[in-house]
Amino acid sequence: MVHVALLGFGTVGSGTAEVLTANQSMIESYIGDQIHIKYILDLRDFPESPFADRIVHDFNVILNDPEVSLVAEMMGGAHPAYDFSKAALEAGKHVVTSNKEVVATFGIELLETATAHGVRYLFEASVGGGIPVIRPLMNDFNSNSILAIDGILNGTTNYMLTKMKDEGLAFDTVLRDAQKKGYAERNPDADIKGKDAARKIVILAALAYGKLISPEDIYTEGITEISDMATTLATQMGYSIKLIGHTERIADGRVLAMVSPRLIPPSNPLSHITDVFNGILVETDMLGTTMFYGRGAGKLPTAGAVVADILDIARRPAEKNTLSWVAATADDLAPMDDYVSGHFLILSNPDGKIDRDVLRGQFGEIKQVICSDGTVAFITGAMSEKELAKKLEQTDRIVFSHIRLLG
Amino acid sequence: MVHVALLGFGTVGSGTAEVLTANQSMIESYIGDQIHIKYILDLRDFPESPFADRIVHDFNVILNDPEVSLVAEMMGGAHPAYDFSKAALEAGKHVVTSNKEVVATFGIELLETATAHGVRYLFEASVGGGIPVIRPLMNDFNSNSILAIDGILNGTTNYMLTKMKDEGLAFDTVLRDAQKKGYAERNPDADIKGKDAARKIVILAALAYGKLISPEDIYTEGITEISDMATTLATQMGYSIKLIGHTERIADGRVLAMVSPRLIPPSNPLSHITDVFNGILVETDMLGTTMFYGRGAGKLPTAGAVVADILDIARRPAEKNTLSWVAATADDLAPMDDYVSGHFLILSNPDGKIDRDVLRGQFGEIKQVICSDGTVAFITGAMSEKELAKKLEQTDRIVFSHIRLLG
Repeated sequence: MVHVALLGFGTVGSGTAEVLTANQSMIESYIGDQIHIKYILDLRDFPESPFADRIVHDFNVILNDPEVSLVAEMMGGAHPAYDFSKAALEAGKHVVTSNKEVVATFGIELLETATAHGVRYLFEASVGGGIPVIRPLMNDFNSNSILAIDGILNGTTNYMLTKMKDEGLAFDTVLRDAQKKGYAERNPDADIKGKDAARKIVILAALAYGKLISPEDIYTEGITEISDMATTLATQMGYSIKLIGHTERIADGRVLAMVSPRLIPPSNPLSHITDVFNGILVETDMLGTTMFYGRGAGKLPTAGAVVADILDIARRPAEKNTLSWVAATADDLAPMDDYVSGHFLILSNPDGKIDRDVLRGQFGEIKQVICSDGTVAFITGAMSEKELAKKLEQTDRIVFSHIRLLG
Repeated sequence: MVHVALLGFGTVGSGTAEVLTANQSMIESYIGDQIHIKYILDLRDFPESPFADRIVHDFNVILNDPEVSLVAEMMGGAHPAYDFSKAALEAGKHVVTSNKEVVATFGIELLETATAHGVRYLFEASVGGGIPVIRPLMNDFNSNSILAIDGILNGTTNYMLTKMKDEGLAFDTVLRDAQKKGYAERNPDADIKGKDAARKIVILAALAYGKLISPEDIYTEGITEISDMATTLATQMGYSIKLIGHTERIADGRVLAMVSPRLIPPSNPLSHITDVFNGILVETDMLGTTMFYGRGAGKLPTAGAVVADILDIARRPAEKNTLSWVAATADDLAPMDDYVSGHFLILSNPDGKIDRDVLRGQFGEIKQVICSDGTVAFITGAMSEKELAKKLEQTDRIVFSHIRLLG
C-alpha cells in the first residue's frame, strides 16, 4: 500500500481525493497496489467530508510519519508550498505538484533535492491542467531538438478572447462575465496580465532547453490592452487573437521566452482553440509539429494530472530524474529587441491619408489593410522589435493596437 | 552500449538510422549510454549508404547475436515481420515496431511473449506516426475511464478530403493528385477503403478497453463514396467531412469500434485538422477532452516515434508490461445496428416535393436543409442505424449520400 498525503483540500486537492476514490479499482489493477490517502493538510476542517478523519493542520504529522512515501502539494502560492515540498523531499518522500509558481521559482532546487535523496519530483498538473504534456515532453521528444513551443496556457484569457471575438464584446464586459462564471478571480491580474502564462512558459522552456528562466525576466504582456476594435478588425482579416506563451532557441543557443497576445492565422491549429481550452504546439526537427489540446484547468482535469504523477511514482519509485535544469543567466537570454515577427497595427488615420502605398513606404511589405472610422489596420512583413520601434517613431499617428503575428 | 538491429531499411528504417545518428549526442546524454546500430536487415544492398557495412540479409545473424538486445521492426506487412518479432522476443530481445498490421493482428501474442521473456514490446509509431499518443494513453490515462476515442488516423485520406473541400474537386481527381505527390500508393485501397484506419482504431480500442478486436470484424467504410456534391453541401452547412476511427464502450460494457466518414461541426477540434495531419481526440471521465495532433506519417516523424520507444527501453529495460489484452469475442462487440448518431443525407428530389415539412414527417427532427439541383440535403436528429434503415426503406428517393454526424 502506498500511503500518500495531500497538501491542500481546495479545488485540486479535493478533486484528487475524488479521482483516487472514484476510480480506485482501475488504479489498483494498473499499479498492482493500493493508494491510501492517509492525511490531508488544510487550515480548515471539513466535518461533512468523507475524508474528515484524514484532515490534519500540522505538516509535521505528515513529515514525521515514515509510512507516508508520497506528498501531493496542491496548496498554491510560493510559501509554505515550497518549504513543505523541500522538507518532504529531504525526508525521502516523493513529491508531486500542481503548483506552477513553485516549479517556476524553485524547480531547480527541488529537482536537485529529489535527486540527492533518491526520490522523484513530478509536476504534470502545473502546465496545461488535464493535458498530458510534461510527461510526453520528457519521454517522447528526447531524440528531437525542440525548435519552438507556442502555447495557449491560460484558460481564463482564452475564454475572454473567444467571447470578445464571437460576440464583439469589450474587454471589461467579458472580464465581468468571466468573474461571474468563476473563471476569473476577483483580482484577475495573474491571468489577464499574463503572469500565469509566464510561469508556465518558463517551465516548458526549461523542459525544452534545460535553462530555467525567472518568470520576472521574460517579456510579459497580458490582454488588458486588447480592444474590441482590434478583435473585430483581426476577425475581418481572417485571424484570431490569442494569448501565447512562446519559447525558442535562437541560432547562437540563447533562449527566448515571452508571453504576449498574438495574431494567429487559421492555418495554425492554435487559432481554433476556443473557450477555456488550452493547446501546446511543439515544433521539433524530427517529429515535426505536434499539438496537445485539452482542459487547462478545472477540478477533475487538474486532479487527473496529479493522480497520473502519483501512479507514475507508484509504478516507478526508483526511476532516475533525467532533468538537470540550470538557472538561466542574462547571457542565456535572447534579447526581445531582436525578435522577428510580422506585426498587426492599428494607427489613427483621421484624414484617411494613410493608404497601402503610404504604409508600404513606411513599413515595407504589407499583407492586409483595412481603413475604417478614422483608423488604418494592417499587417507588416517580418521585422524585429527594434526595426518596428524605429519605424513607429517616424510616424505621427497614434498606435491604437500592436499585436505580433504568429507565423 | 545498447546494440540494436533495424529490420527494414525503407522509409521508416532509414529515417530511424538518420534520427539516431543526427541527434546522437542528445540521445546519449539523455540515456547515459550509446545506441549502436549493429545490423540492418533488408533484402537489398545499399552500397552508397553510410550504413552499407551493417546490412545483412539473414535474420538469423541478428537472432543469434547475443549482443543485440533490441530489434526495431519496420518492415511492414504481416509476414515475416510477425515471425521475426516473435523470434526476437523469445530470444530475450526487446522489440519496437511501426507496424500497425502486426500489432492489430498479433498484438496479444507478442505482448504475452514479451512478458514471458522479461522484455518489452512497444509500438508508439504504429498509430499517429510522429504524434506521441500510445505512451500518453499508457501513462497518463490510468486514473480515467476512457469514454470514447475519435481519430483522424490516415493522413492520405485527410489530405484528399481537405483538397476536395478547399478546391471543390472530385474524388478521382484528388486521388490522382495524392498519388502524384506520393501520399497515396499506386494501389490505394488500404487508405481509401479505411483498412489502415481500421487497424489503428483497434489498437487504440485495445489500449482503452483491453480487448483487441480483429480489424476485419469492425464496420469499415472508406471515402470512395464521398462525392464532390456531398463535400460542397456539407461545407455550405458549415461542416467538414473527415474519415474517423471511432471507439467507445457502451453502458453494458461492450465495445464498439468502427471507421467511417463523419460530418464534423466546427466546434469539434478534429474539424480543423487539415492536409496530411492526424488528430486523436480522447474523451475521459476525469481529464475531460484531450486531443493529440501532429504528423501521422512521413519518414522522420515516424522514425522519431520509433526512436522514442528505443530510448524508453534503453532507460527502463526492466519495466513491466502493464497491457493485458484479450481477444474480443462476438459477445464483446456492440452491434453497429444500435449505434446512434445524427445523419447527413442527400436524397433525390427531382420534383422538389421534399421540403422541411415532408422530411420532418419522415425523419423527425431536422437540423438543416438545402434543396438544390434536384436533390435535398439535410441532417437528422440522433437515431440508430436500425431506425434510419427503416425510415430509408419507406422513401422512394435515391440516397446519393449518407454520412454520420460526429456530435
